[in-house]
Amino acid sequence: MKSFEAITIRHRGGRLEALDQTLLPQAEVWVDVTEPAQLIEAIQALRIRGAPLIGVAAALGFAKVAEAGANTGALKTWGEKIRSARPTAVNLMNAMDRVLSRVTDGPASVVREAEAVFDEDVALCEKLAQHGSALIQDGDAILTHCNAGALATAGVGTAVGAVIRAHEQGKRIHVFVDETRPLLQGGRLTTWELRRAGVPYTLICDNMAASLMRAGRVKKIFVGADRVAVNGDFANKIGTYGLAVLARHHGVEMYPVAPVTTVDPQCRNGSEIEIEERNAAEVRGVSGKFGQVMWAPTDAPVFNPAFDVTPVDLVTALVTDFGVFSRADLQAGRLATALKGGRL
Amino acid sequence: MKSFEAITIRHRGGRLEALDQTLLPQAEVWVDVTEPAQLIEAIQALRIRGAPLIGVAAALGFAKVAEAGANTGALKTWGEKIRSARPTAVNLMNAMDRVLSRVTDGPASVVREAEAVFDEDVALCEKLAQHGSALIQDGDAILTHCNAGALATAGVGTAVGAVIRAHEQGKRIHVFVDETRPLLQGGRLTTWELRRAGVPYTLICDNMAASLMRAGRVKKIFVGADRVAVNGDFANKIGTYGLAVLARHHGVEMYPVAPVTTVDPQCRNGSEIEIEERNAAEVRGVSGKFGQVMWAPTDAPVFNPAFDVTPVDLVTALVTDFGVFSRADLQAGRLATALKGGRL
Repeated sequence: MKSFEAITIRHRGGRLEALDQTLLPQAEVWVDVTEPAQLIEAIQALRIRGAPLIGVAAALGFAKVAEAGANTGALKTWGEKIRSARPTAVNLMNAMDRVLSRVTDGPASVVREAEAVFDEDVALCEKLAQHGSALIQDGDAILTHCNAGALATAGVGTAVGAVIRAHEQGKRIHVFVDETRPLLQGGRLTTWELRRAGVPYTLICDNMAASLMRAGRVKKIFVGADRVAVNGDFANKIGTYGLAVLARHHGVEMYPVAPVTTVDPQCRNGSEIEIEERNAAEVRGVSGKFGQVMWAPTDAPVFNPAFDVTPVDLVTALVTDFGVFSRADLQAGRLATALKGGRL
Repeated sequence: MKSFEAITIRHRGGRLEALDQTLLPQAEVWVDVTEPAQLIEAIQALRIRGAPLIGVAAALGFAKVAEAGANTGALKTWGEKIRSARPTAVNLMNAMDRVLSRVTDGPASVVREAEAVFDEDVALCEKLAQHGSALIQDGDAILTHCNAGALATAGVGTAVGAVIRAHEQGKRIHVFVDETRPLLQGGRLTTWELRRAGVPYTLICDNMAASLMRAGRVKKIFVGADRVAVNGDFANKIGTYGLAVLARHHGVEMYPVAPVTTVDPQCRNGSEIEIEERNAAEVRGVSGKFGQVMWAPTDAPVFNPAFDVTPVDLVTALVTDFGVFSRADLQAGRLATALKGGRL
């Protein structure tokens, strides 16, 4: 496998390494994910996170197993294990299906396919940044949720990539960042990325977004998407759906930004998207490299869905690497038509 | 001053003491607030919290100063200082105006007035629980935000008091508790109260409420109110307004519960309510007796309003100690009429 170095993942000296995002912004530590068990642990523990990056890392990790000379049986077993490391992210399934389909052609073919998955993600991000930034005007105030930046991809990112690109184009923008409970990806990661890029931002708690919208202080919402249904419904980090309802009420524009690889052609609408529930401890307190505290009663019953689903009728437009699909486009089935055109 | 003991405040052996709510649910510690400087510190540090309780504690604390023999000049100075300890809570102003008006009649009169403020709050809570619980049916799922329970009052509480009363009446109910960032009153206090009362509950992060509503898992929202305008607009803990918008979108009923003393007759509508902004550190992490961690960049710019304002058109009905005012009642000015009838 060729050597490369992205913000989030790198291959050098024959080792595949991922930036451990659970340690940001306090520390930058790279973890070895050359072995598939390490890779799966890193995905499940959210060291590797963001739908596109999970797919890229999984493909590369699988290619390392192939390169190391594993036999077909072992490869298929590991392939299935990696493929099911997280249930919601369709990128993971797509990327794994691609490399798994090359197993019979030999390890060199698997490696080439994994490298292609990586290269394509970098190129997709460039296109997303180009299409997304075109929707941002000088003076815009933008709200974002979770982290859909370079840290979620192998490239410049999706929703935050578009925002940073608009800033690089000289547009004067301000970004409000939802902290994004329970895992605080906004407070920890998006703040870190925007600060590094020099984009003016303000951190808020998730429940403060409505007040900003009512005061007319938010013009547009840019978020990522973990899975997009053919009809334009999309799953994203818990809290996204509520923002979409608030956006509709206040006349704020709502833009999910995601590569076409995030569209699941088997998924007709949002009701078919399985929502993963996570550990109760995440809601009873916070835990990370930054420290660990619990404020709720130790036995407090908890509801902790990782994602929610936003229906297409609350979407202003879906920004993809193949261009912008307006709500009318989506509702007219143009995403399905584009997919049938062989773009996946 | 007579001796008494409530869940939140007590007077015994000549000392006025308040339950330090910043230490809940991990520890139950009473702090001495006999001296006015201690009282003001306790209010500002949220050891004493909840609009009704702040008013009661302030009146009682002021009466202790009068009882100790302070002269009129010192009394008026302390009175003004206590009255302005928190800017938004109208109960604080009302209670202090009552005891201040007795200064010229001598300390015994001030003490009697403060005792009346206390007794009236206990009685008000009983009436609120009675009117509020009547709106709750067997099988209801109820969402609440922040803490509007016994801990916020001298009695059985406001919104949570009504919910607990419904449970005591044998109605099978389930309560979803917003954790209520940044200070986590829901996760720390409401969970503690519901657990103690044996009411089935589930703790959620604030951004999960929308998903529950979309799934039809919430029927009614019960919240407190820190200040109610004459037209029915009300200020409450940050996040309440967003819930009201979500409730409207999903056909969920929205009930603020507050004594008539929370209505500010000088405040015509919500636009006249001043919103206090709090320290940025609260949003960059969490801090309390349970521990202290910071996950955001140390210099992250922050927006941290303590309250938001919900307009009357998003209210199903306002529950008061004088009965239930429907949105139509409120919009027809019946709250103003009731106030003019001399009920304040």
